[in-house]
Order: sequence, then C-alpha cells, then structure tokens
Amino acid sequence: MNKVEPRTLPGFMELLPKEQILFNQMKEKIQKSYERFGFLPIDTPIIEMADVLLAKAGGETEKQIYRFQKGENDLALRFDLTVPLAKYVTQYYNELSFPFRRYQIGKVYRGERPQKGRFREFYQCDIDIIGDNELNIINDAEMPSVIYHTIKELGFEDFTICMNNRKLLTGLFEEIQVEEKSVDIMRIIDKLEKIGKENVIACLKDLELEDEKIKKIMQFIEIEGATDEKLQALENLNFTSETFNQGLQELKEVVKYVRIFGIPDSKFKVDLTIARGLDYYTGTVYETFLNDYREIGSVCSGGRYDNLAEYYTDRKLPGVGVSIGLTRLFYKLNELQAMQEAQKSIAKVLVVSMVDDKTKAVEVATTLRKQEIPTEVYLEDKKIKAKFKYADKLEIPYVIVIGEEELQNNTVTLKNMETGEQETLTLEETIKIIK
Amino acid sequence: MNKVEPRTLPGFMELLPKEQILFNQMKEKIQKSYERFGFLPIDTPIIEMADVLLAKAGGETEKQIYRFQKGENDLALRFDLTVPLAKYVTQYYNELSFPFRRYQIGKVYRGERPQKGRFREFYQCDIDIIGDNELNIINDAEMPSVIYHTIKELGFEDFTICMNNRKLLTGLFEEIQVEEKSVDIMRIIDKLEKIGKENVIACLKDLELEDEKIKKIMQFIEIEGATDEKLQALENLNFTSETFNQGLQELKEVVKYVRIFGIPDSKFKVDLTIARGLDYYTGTVYETFLNDYREIGSVCSGGRYDNLAEYYTDRKLPGVGVSIGLTRLFYKLNELQAMQEAQKSIAKVLVVSMVDDKTKAVEVATTLRKQEIPTEVYLEDKKIKAKFKYADKLEIPYVIVIGEEELQNNTVTLKNMETGEQETLTLEETIKIIK
Repeated sequence: MNKVEPRTLPGFMELLPKEQILFNQMKEKIQKSYERFGFLPIDTPIIEMADVLLAKAGGETEKQIYRFQKGENDLALRFDLTVPLAKYVTQYYNELSFPFRRYQIGKVYRGERPQKGRFREFYQCDIDIIGDNELNIINDAEMPSVIYHTIKELGFEDFTICMNNRKLLTGLFEEIQVEEKSVDIMRIIDKLEKIGKENVIACLKDLELEDEKIKKIMQFIEIEGATDEKLQALENLNFTSETFNQGLQELKEVVKYVRIFGIPDSKFKVDLTIARGLDYYTGTVYETFLNDYREIGSVCSGGRYDNLAEYYTDRKLPGVGVSIGLTRLFYKLNELQAMQEAQKSIAKVLVVSMVDDKTKAVEVATTLRKQEIPTEVYLEDKKIKAKFKYADKLEIPYVIVIGEEELQNNTVTLKNMETGEQETLTLEETIKIIK
Repeated sequence: MNKVEPRTLPGFMELLPKEQILFNQMKEKIQKSYERFGFLPIDTPIIEMADVLLAKAGGETEKQIYRFQKGENDLALRFDLTVPLAKYVTQYYNELSFPFRRYQIGKVYRGERPQKGRFREFYQCDIDIIGDNELNIINDAEMPSVIYHTIKELGFEDFTICMNNRKLLTGLFEEIQVEEKSVDIMRIIDKLEKIGKENVIACLKDLELEDEKIKKIMQFIEIEGATDEKLQALENLNFTSETFNQGLQELKEVVKYVRIFGIPDSKFKVDLTIARGLDYYTGTVYETFLNDYREIGSVCSGGRYDNLAEYYTDRKLPGVGVSIGLTRLFYKLNELQAMQEAQKSIAKVLVVSMVDDKTKAVEVATTLRKQEIPTEVYLEDKKIKAKFKYADKLEIPYVIVIGEEELQNNTVTLKNMETGEQETLTLEETIKIIK
C-alpha cells in the first residue's frame, strides 16, 4: 500500500507527552487563578461567519486570517478571543449579568509567515470585565492583581507589571497640537527600549516635528523615579489638556487601588512609554515582564477600552482585560530552560506482575485508583528489565512488584524509582507511603 | 456606523456561563478519571494537511470535512481524534514508550446537515492504548473499567457497558459462508433493537440468503441469558471457524478480567448484536448506555483494532480505545433535565461595600482569595438591591457586606444567599463558615 507521510504543519506546536503534561499544568494554573477572582468561563466556536469576525478587522489581520467557503457560507477561524467576546456579549446581552467577568482559554489562528517561536495556532488565556454603559476605574486595578497572582502561581517571583494610561499620551499630543501624527509618534515611542533615545529623536524629526515639541515628548517619556515621584512629575508638567489630566487622575486611582489589592511596589511600575501599539485601548494599559527573561517580551498584556462591540451594537460596553499568550510563553520558557519544577508523569505508580496471572496486579491497581492515586498496570508479557525501563522513561515515581512470594504473603514490593530503595510491605502501608 | 449582526453558526454549541460551568465540570471529571488510569495527554493541531487527514477516509467523511486552501497548502480540520493519533504515533514512534496510553480531549469538526442535537463542532474525549506489534487482551478489559469509573464520576449509577467481539460475527459468516455479504449483514444486525426481529429477517431475505443461513444468524444474535450462560451458549454452537473460536476465547478472557477489575456483573453485559457499524474495529467492541436515558444512544463507544496507522507506516500498531462524545451527551442530558447536581457558580463569595471607599472590600476579597476561596468584589456604584440581584442571578452562595458599622468594629456581615440568614462576624469566623 502507498503510505502517506505523516507530518504536522509548520507553525503548529505539537508536544511530546512529557512536555504536554507541563503545558497542561500551566494552563490549569492560569484557569484556577482566573476562577479565584470569580471570572466565568465561556467557550465560543473556533469557526465563525467571516463577516462577523472581520467586522472590526483590517490590514494585517485580514491577510493572516484562515478564511474559506463551506457550502454557501463564508467562514473564518477566530484570530483572537476579543472579537468572539464582543459577539457573545452583544448576542446574549439580556441573559448576562453586568459587570460581566469572563475568562476564555482557547486556540486562535493566524496564518503568519512561519518563523522560529511564532505560531499559527496558539492558546490565548483571556480575562475581561465588561460594564454596561460604565465600568468603575477600580476594575483597572484588579487586572494587575490577577496578573500578580497568576504569574506567581506559574512559579515566577521576579517580574514587573508595567502600567500606563493612553490618555496621558493622547493628552500630550493635544497639549503640543500634534494629534494628527499621534499614531506615528506612538509607534516610535513604543520602540524607545529597542532603539534608544537618540534614534527616537531622529525618527520624530523625520515626522517634521518642531524641536520644542520633540523636547516636550522626550521630557514626558523620560520621566524617571519611583511610582509616586513619577505621578508628581506628571502633575508638575501643569498641562492644561483635559484628556491628560483625566488620564493622570485615572492612573493615580489605579496605583492607589493596586496597592490596596496587596501588590507590593516592587512588582509594579508606571511606564510612560507603553502605548500597546495600534490596539484599541483607550485608558489604562498593561505589560508584564519576567525580569530574568526580558527577551521573551511581555507575557501578559492588555488594557481598558471604551467600547467593546461598537461594530455590532449601539450599546456602550466599556471593558478592561488582559491576555496571556500561553503557547509562545511555554515555547520560550522551554527554550530558555526556565520551566518551573513540576510533576513530570501522570501515573504515580506502575504495577508490575512477575507471575503470569495478572489478577493480583489488577486488583492492587484498582485499590490504588480508588484512593485517587493515578496508577498504571503493565499488562504486556515482557522481561522485567523492559518493565522497569518503561517506568523509568515515563518518570513514574513508584513501581509495585508482585511476585510469587508477595502473592503468598499478601504483600507487595514497593520500589522508589528516584532513590532506588525498595521494601516489602502490606498494601495499606504502601498506600500511606505513596500518598 | 453600519452594524454587523452578531450570530453563531448553526450546529455550533455556544453556552451561557452557567451551562458552561456544568460542561467544564463534566470535562474535568472525565480528564481526571482518565488520568487516574495513567493515560498521558496529547494535544494535536486542529488543522492538518488534507492528504494526511484523509489518508484513510472516504465516503461520508470526505463529504463532511472542512477543507480549504491557505497559500499553497491543502488543509483540513480534524474530524476525529483517531487519525491525528495515528499520525502522532507514527511521527514520534522513537520517542514514545509502548504500550502508549494517551488521552485527548478536544474539538473536532464535521460539516453535517444541521439538525437538532447534531453538532458540526463537538468535543471528543478519547483514550487509546497502542501496542508496538502486539497488545495484551487484558487491555480490552481495562477499557470497561475506565468507562465504569468515568461514568460514575459523572454522577450516573444506572448504566450498562455492552461488549461484543467482532470475530464472533466474522466467524459466523465464515461458518455459513456468507463473508462477501458480511458488511450488509452487520449493518442489518446492528439495527435489531431499532427495527425488531421480523424486519431483520425480512432485510436478510432481501440479501437473498438461504433460510437455513438466516436461521443460524438469528440463533446467534438471539442468544439470551446471563453473561456466563451466553458464553456457554456460544461454546455450544460448536462452530469450527477459527475466527469464531478465537473471538470466543478473547471475549471469555475480557469478561474474566473485567470482573477482576472490580466491575459488578450488573454493570456490564455481552451483547452479540453490537457490531459498531462500518468502523475499523477487529475484536472487542463496546457501547455504553444510561439505562434511564436509552434514547441518548451509546454515551461511550469504542473497540479493538489490529492496525492503527497502516496508511502511514508498515509497523503493526494494534490498539484499543473508547470515546465519549461530550458535546452531544451534554446537550441531551440538558434537554432531558438529567444533568447531575453540581456547583453552579465560580465565585463562592461576593463582597459588597455599603460605603463609597472600597478599600476594606478589596482587602477582604484579597484575604479570601489567599485562602483559595473564589471571590468577587462588586466594584460598581449601584444601589444595594442591584448588588444582591447580581449575586442572586449568578447563584453566588455567600455575600459579605461591609458598612459603616462593620468598618468601625472590624467585622463583616455574612449573608447565606440560600437560607437568607445573615450574621455579623469577624473575618476569621467568616472564612471558617465559607470553607
């Protein structure tokens, strides 16, 4: 028979079971952390009508999208979890309670040019809080609290949650009357860390900004100091722009409540250069960095938006949310060997029979499983060496051996695969040790 | 602005949060049960190369598949989790340990004609054990054990796991020399329960089978009695077909070990009519019915196959597995109001502030969350009635109220939303009650 070559598409992550165990643990920790803050689960389809998904899109997104016909329908695969949320909230508005706090963890699709560390299928882990017409600014302070606890759950201690408010930048542009160039300026500012101060100035000059205006921009984005010093420095600029002053008030309120949420000053900072590119954010914005692995980029980002679903409804639905790109994060942590210690096997015990009749082995496994101990019986007729090799390869921590002697004495022999120690015990004693 | 109408494709299940919580609980129970048997997780892409996915397919499957071009690639969405498993095992053969025990829970896609209770996107929850060249028959007895514990985990007590062996039917056809009509005959037999004995005989006559042959078929499928009586009756047929006798030996061995795995006789039976249609099974086959909800059909089916990946490799990879179609099962249970009692909210507590400053409310929530109690703070400035209505709609079991008095006395007022009782307590006492 002609064989087809089995292969996986480039840009699609496919893990071996041992890595998958780690990946799933991260996913479950994120989910559990989100649930501790009372976020509700939703699970929208991966396929949607193309016109629904693309109501808001354009440019890059449209080029990257997986879009196809099925029968008479023009379909597409979701490219994020925000558009499906907007759809969902509009569709089920009357059945939902607001503020609507939802999490969604699922795969999204972008047909990017494949390159190392970029994926075409990847998990996003999103939380959002959607208000009905209005949403208290304290919600903007709860987001860093969720980030803080989630990143800690994942095993990281040294990280920084960076916050800014887009209104400060927008207000600055109003103040120096360069609103029409704001998108370009923001894009340049966003690169400060990457290209350095001199290059930022050069790029701004290319936009034909007057020197004095460039000076004001640089003064603004170069404000240094501790959080309260920065807030004071912003105050001291004495800008008259209403947008600017609103942004400043919001940022101060967020900082105040972030502290009340119990986040230490060492774990967050105000970073005036964060603009979150061309995204649809209108107020608070967030980026989160693992300080030992800055090269990964932001591991959790998001922000406040005035209007979630304006393409679907006239209702005003302001919201705030953040997202973890889990597939990329996992890939990078794995590459940097920065994965946190974790359980490596599913089964905690492998039961091995030295006699042909596997009755006792099966009975022992059934007893352990009733005690909620994940257990596997080795059922194949192989040499004892092969059986231990199997446990070894799967990193199963305990092997229970049942031979003639154990059968006669109603005992089992328990081998600790890490230490190599083994002892003959009653099943009761064995269960105690394993637990 | 022109609005796009937000809508979900027909045949795609989209749940409200309260239903989603129930759905996720079922999914997690299944996962936990699979893990207790030591199955390893894998997570293959939803998109694959069309030639890889369709290597084995044909007929109905090809018509239903979501297939499309992206750039130069001919792609398709997976329509089950078995083909991706075959691909995976072949691809990573050298890195896997055999027997390879894997579970996968994920969405699959079939563009069926939409009708009530049929879905185009649905979750399958699969386990399979793949042997390298051979696989002990005891594995066939472990499957019912996994089914038994999983269905019990889902909260059902009254169910029957039906088992058969395809070799019995194949052997019967050899015995009466009607092999060339076996596919048609099996299809008819499979309908016994639906269409009744007389119609089965009529259909068999339409195949131009001689009366004596029809008699033998009916004798076979009408064997009645308890499990051991059935096995004895099969023995008594004294068929000479080797296939038949091999099937009988296998079935006897499976029954023997199913009992050793601790499954009571009341929960399984030998059902000689089960053929699993045109599937690729070659030995043991399973179907599972909830006795109070027979109309749902089999909720967990599967079987033994000689060769998992013959379209990809010359290696012989025999396996045995079962699958739960979770989306359909959930839909049907919901429709029949047969869903088992379960937690209905994510948050266990809603913290509500009666004073403008929400500092204390946030602090209380942070304390509860540290105690792993899922907690939400109501942050919007609404009337107290609206806040309680919110807790009520989301079925959050406890509300903690913080007013002037509580602030002064460093207490909180805890309201049990089910009983309506409320008392003023220290935070410590409150945590104890909630836990």
